[in-house]
Formats: sequence, structure tokens, C-alpha cells
Amino acid sequence: YFVTTLPGDGIGPEIMSATVKVCQAVAAKQGFKIEFKEALIGGAALDACNDPFPDETLKQMKSSDSVLLAAIGGPKWDANPRDKRPETGLLKMRKSLGLFANLRPATVLPQLADASTLKPEVVSGVDIMVVRELTGDVYFGEPKGITTKDGERFGYNNMCYKESEVKRIAKVAFDIARKRGKRVCSVDKANVLDVSQLWRDVVIETHKDYPDVELSHMYVDNAAMQLIRNPKQFDVMVTGNIFGDILSDEASMLVGSLGMLPSASVGDPSGPGVFEPIHGSAPDIAGTDKANPLATILSAAMMFRYDLDRPEAAQAIEDAVNKVLDDGVRTGDLGGKVGCKQMGEEVCKRI
Amino acid sequence: YFVTTLPGDGIGPEIMSATVKVCQAVAAKQGFKIEFKEALIGGAALDACNDPFPDETLKQMKSSDSVLLAAIGGPKWDANPRDKRPETGLLKMRKSLGLFANLRPATVLPQLADASTLKPEVVSGVDIMVVRELTGDVYFGEPKGITTKDGERFGYNNMCYKESEVKRIAKVAFDIARKRGKRVCSVDKANVLDVSQLWRDVVIETHKDYPDVELSHMYVDNAAMQLIRNPKQFDVMVTGNIFGDILSDEASMLVGSLGMLPSASVGDPSGPGVFEPIHGSAPDIAGTDKANPLATILSAAMMFRYDLDRPEAAQAIEDAVNKVLDDGVRTGDLGGKVGCKQMGEEVCKRI
Ligand SMILES: CC(C)[C@H](C(=O)O)[C@@H](O)C(=O)O
Ligand SMILES: CC(C)[C@H](C(=O)O)[C@@H](O)C(=O)O
Repeated sequence: YFVTTLPGDGIGPEIMSATVKVCQAVAAKQGFKIEFKEALIGGAALDACNDPFPDETLKQMKSSDSVLLAAIGGPKWDANPRDKRPETGLLKMRKSLGLFANLRPATVLPQLADASTLKPEVVSGVDIMVVRELTGDVYFGEPKGITTKDGERFGYNNMCYKESEVKRIAKVAFDIARKRGKRVCSVDKANVLDVSQLWRDVVIETHKDYPDVELSHMYVDNAAMQLIRNPKQFDVMVTGNIFGDILSDEASMLVGSLGMLPSASVGDPSGPGVFEPIHGSAPDIAGTDKANPLATILSAAMMFRYDLDRPEAAQAIEDAVNKVLDDGVRTGDLGGKVGCKQMGEEVCKRI
Repeated sequence: YFVTTLPGDGIGPEIMSATVKVCQAVAAKQGFKIEFKEALIGGAALDACNDPFPDETLKQMKSSDSVLLAAIGGPKWDANPRDKRPETGLLKMRKSLGLFANLRPATVLPQLADASTLKPEVVSGVDIMVVRELTGDVYFGEPKGITTKDGERFGYNNMCYKESEVKRIAKVAFDIARKRGKRVCSVDKANVLDVSQLWRDVVIETHKDYPDVELSHMYVDNAAMQLIRNPKQFDVMVTGNIFGDILSDEASMLVGSLGMLPSASVGDPSGPGVFEPIHGSAPDIAGTDKANPLATILSAAMMFRYDLDRPEAAQAIEDAVNKVLDDGVRTGDLGGKVGCKQMGEEVCKRI
């Protein structure tokens, strides 16, 4: 396999290096080969060539079987104009590779059930997959801008979806639910928004091909509440780009430890997916070997499962991470003393 | 004072009746007079005249000093077309009375610190005021609709704000912060949305007149996370209509008991505000005397404070509610046995 790595900014390079070693360990053990090649994105790319998502990176990604991304951004580039910000590179990457489905599992591991600010009895056993649409909605809708209207400034973005966009993300959610608890909760604001009314109509139509999956609907305000009130009621949640941005971050708090949460962004099966931790680049601890690489390592497991069709490799990594936690090995964010590099080695040892 | 009551649907009439008695008790005690007059809204109005917000109701509200609203909606009207739904009446009411500011306190009472699904040490002492813009944003933006584009359905709403709308809600937030902890956190998605960029710019400009108030900014996804991770960091949060809809419902979970949470919707100081509990109409327990009237009673306290300029009346009600809780009096939702009517009487007794 040929895999592009995008170490990005802050702690990115450290956690990527630990993850690559784990991938090599599992490849050696299971008898296959992966070649890794770095490319630039985010702040690192801005520094090198004044573009947060260089064409060269896109080109290399397109020729890859899959992509691992660590983390991007930092105060250094925060004051830049919008087109020169690291986040803009991220959005451009998603759009140009057609990565329309963002999969964010929120799985509470028994070893870490107390890491959440929610009561352990509320979160223990939680296993939610948030499926967020990633290339549409108010993120990319046109027209948009800041203009003058009736003598004052006016800012606007178009919150919109077309039928085909809703249909393909609904299919992803139903397909995933089939392999899990067979329940999908679609989240919208159909009592107020036309775009949500279309969303709901198309989800209901798409559901006709999945009679074995149970479908329910929830308004986004209620979903924000239910995630805290009784998170165990959810199996798969599917929602649009902006609601998904908010709800998936909220759901991560059920797990508590951001350092443990992977994600996958996938699209056209013939192209590569991008696998990355949900946490940021933590510039404050960059270069100090204090970062927790497990979220990136678990993202690599998702890569093996969803992109490279190597479920045994995914399982081997997840088992090793579980063993590490069982053995009480913890980085600083989880109250332990182990550094980033050593954490990577501890996982490798258990592969 | 002349106050319109909108009992609405489900448990609405019961909790309104308990609340009116509490208001009368405080008026008698403190030597002023209130006249209450009912009007129709929501399902009740649909049943009576096929309009969720009749002109007559608007007219009566306009001639009132203030308005108490109990709860609207129910399965009976859920399948109606959008213009015949109870929620549509609510939105029309907000817009036609110019109620642009929705104030939602999330205050954790020590007596109920364990009602939340969050750990008591995380929520005890939480005292947040969410200030939500209520008459703009994607709720009311034009153009909007469902149309056909390139041979498929396309749904769209305009997420938009004009400068003056942002400025007036920012002022409300800064003014409230002055009377509280003097800190405002403005929530937006300025790293992606133009409308949020304008929002942030105008909030920063408006802040120049409030050098004594501390201003910070947070992206909405991070805010959804921080509310769970460390809610005590917040004093006043100000945000747009849709983000506020989501975040204020999420914040209510810090308190845990929906039956305790009041809200105020205010606008032009010369017109009446509308005061209502945040919970719904609970059709399943309607008419059984099981509802908790405290959220509506606390909304009446907000009415005295923000609309009728009777802070001593507000304080008297809040003190009485506190005493009721101290004395262990609880409705069913809080594990007690007291009915709606009796709960109202218990509060009256302690005025
Ligand atoms: C950085 C930002 C543009 C991005 C988003 O809003 O999609 C981030 O919050 C995420 O969820 O990946
Ligand atoms: C019922 C609905 C239209 C309303 C809203 O979205 O504003 C409700 O959720 C609220 O927060 O008052």
C-alpha cells in the first residue's frame, strides 16, 4: 500500500511518527507492506509555500491508497486572511477529494469510563457512530459573503443540500448501521428549515431500501440535549455538516479524553480516505514528547478497516491499544507519565 | 399591570393556573395589582380558529405590559402543513413583537445539584446566562425554499445577519454581564462562515463601549464541548438564533431538571416581553396534575424583573421556590409526590 502522511502542525509530527511505527509493526506481523510518504498541509504548507493545501499534496493524495493526517493549525496563522488559514486547507482538501462522509465513533472504553465529566453510569457502554456530511451545507453553499444592504453591513451564507448529497450520506449511515446496532437517528431542524425538510424527506425515501434498519428523527436542539441526558439511546446518528460539527464535538465529551478519539473522512470508494484524530495540534505541548498518540493510532486502525480492507490489522491495533490501557500505561492527559514516543512503542510491543 | 396569559397546549393550562396564583399572592403581599387575560396560541388557537397565532392574540399582546406563555404543541398537530403548526405560531409571535433577545439562565440550584447527568462537582455552582438572538439568522433568512436544480430537489435557507441585528443583541449581552460576572463569551463559526465573521466584527466593535466587561470568542463546536468539559468557565454566552437554539438546550442539561428552567424573550423596551418555561407541553401527562409548575413560576419572576421592573417581586418568588426546595417539596419529575396544583400552593404559602 502507498499511504500519504500529513503530519501538519504542533504535536502533529510526533504523533504521526508514533503511528507510522505502529502501522509498520502490524504490517510486519501480518505480512504485508506499506510505503509512507509525507506531504504538506496547514500551517506547515503555509510556511513552505504560502498555500494551506498545495496542488502537489492533492496530486500525491490522489495517487495514494489512503491518507493519515495528524493535526493542523496554531496561533501563528490565526490572524491570517481566510484564504491563508490552515482550516481553509482542510476544507479544500475535503472538497477536492470528495470526502463527503465523516465518521466519528464515540466509544467509551471501560478502562476510561471515569474520564468523562458525565456520571460513569450514564456513559459506560456508550457506543455511538456520528455520521456527518462533510462537503455540503452552509460550509460550501453559495451565494455567500459580506456586503452592504440598506446602508449597513450584511453577512450571509447559504445553508443548502441537494437530494443526491443527502441520499449518499444517508446510505453511508444505513450501511454502517447494518454492521452495528441497526438503528439510525437522523438529526435536522425540519420544524423550521426548508433544507431540513428536504433532508428528512430524502432520508425517509432512502430508508425504503433498508427495511432491516430502524430509522428515527430528532430535532438538533433535542439531540444536543439527549446526548447528555441519555446517550445510550443512540446507535448511528446522521446529520448535516454544521449540525454534525457541533454534535460530534459534543459527543466526544461522553468519552472525555480527546486524546483517544479517531475519525475517518471518506467519499468515492475509488479514492483515498483521510484518517485523523479529532483533537487539535496542541501548540502548547508541541515538541515536548507529551502528546497522546492513541487517537492517531486508532485512526490508523480505521484506515485499515474502511480504506485498505484489512480488518485484521485494524483489530490488532485496537486490541493492542486496549492492552496498553489494561496495563495502566497512560500519557499525561490521562494522568500518566508515559511520553508520546514510548506510548507508540508500548502499542508496538503488544501487536 | 395588564398581563396576557397564553396557556397553550398539553400541561399548559395547569402550570399557568398555578403560576397566576403565585403572581396574585406576591401582588397582594407587596401591594400592587395585576389583571390577567387569556389569549390563544399554538394548538389551542389552531383548534379554535385554524391559525396558530391569531391577529386578536397579537393585538391583545401589544396592549399588555407583559406576557406569560406556558407551552405549545402536541402530536395532534404534528402532521399539519408548516403554516398550520403550533411552532409556526411561536415564530410569528417572536417576529411580529420584535422579541429579538432570548435569555436562558442555566443556574444549578444546590438542592438539585444531583439532578444532572454530569458529575455534581462539575455542575455545582454553574450560573450561565445564554443570550440567544431570536428574530434573525437562518430561521427567518430569505431566499429559502425547496426547488428543482439540475434535475433534482434542492433545499435552501439563508443564514444571515445585518450589522444592526448583531449590535443590539451584543448590547443586551454586555448590559446583562455588567449586572453579573462581567464576562461575555461570543459564540460563532467565524473560521468558516461569512455571517459569523460579520457577527464577530460587530461584537468586537460594540464591545468598545463596555471596557469594564471582558469579551472572549469561541467556535460553536468548541463551545458545545466546553459546556460539558468545564461549564463553570462561562458567565454570559451570546450567540445567533440557530447556535443558541442548540447550545441553550445543551446548557439546560447542566441543570438536569427541565421542570426548573425559565426563559425570557424580550425586544423593544416599550413592548411586552414573553416569559415561558423552556420545557414542552408534555401531552402524555396533560390533565393529570403531575406537571412541575416551577419553571413557569420562575419565568413569572423573570417577568417581574425584566419587564415590570419589580425586582422585589421577582426576588420574593425566587426565595419562595428556594424554600419549597429546601423543605423537600418535589413534583414527580424530581422524584417527589406533590401535584402541580399543590406545588403552586406551597410556593404561595411561602411568599
Ligand atoms: C477547523 C474547522 C474548519 C473544522 C470544521 O468545522 O469542519 C473542524 O472543526 C472539524 O470538525 O474538523
Ligand atoms: C419549536 C421551535 C421552533 C423553537 C425554536 O427552534 O426556536 C424551540 O426549539 C425553542 O427553542 O423555542
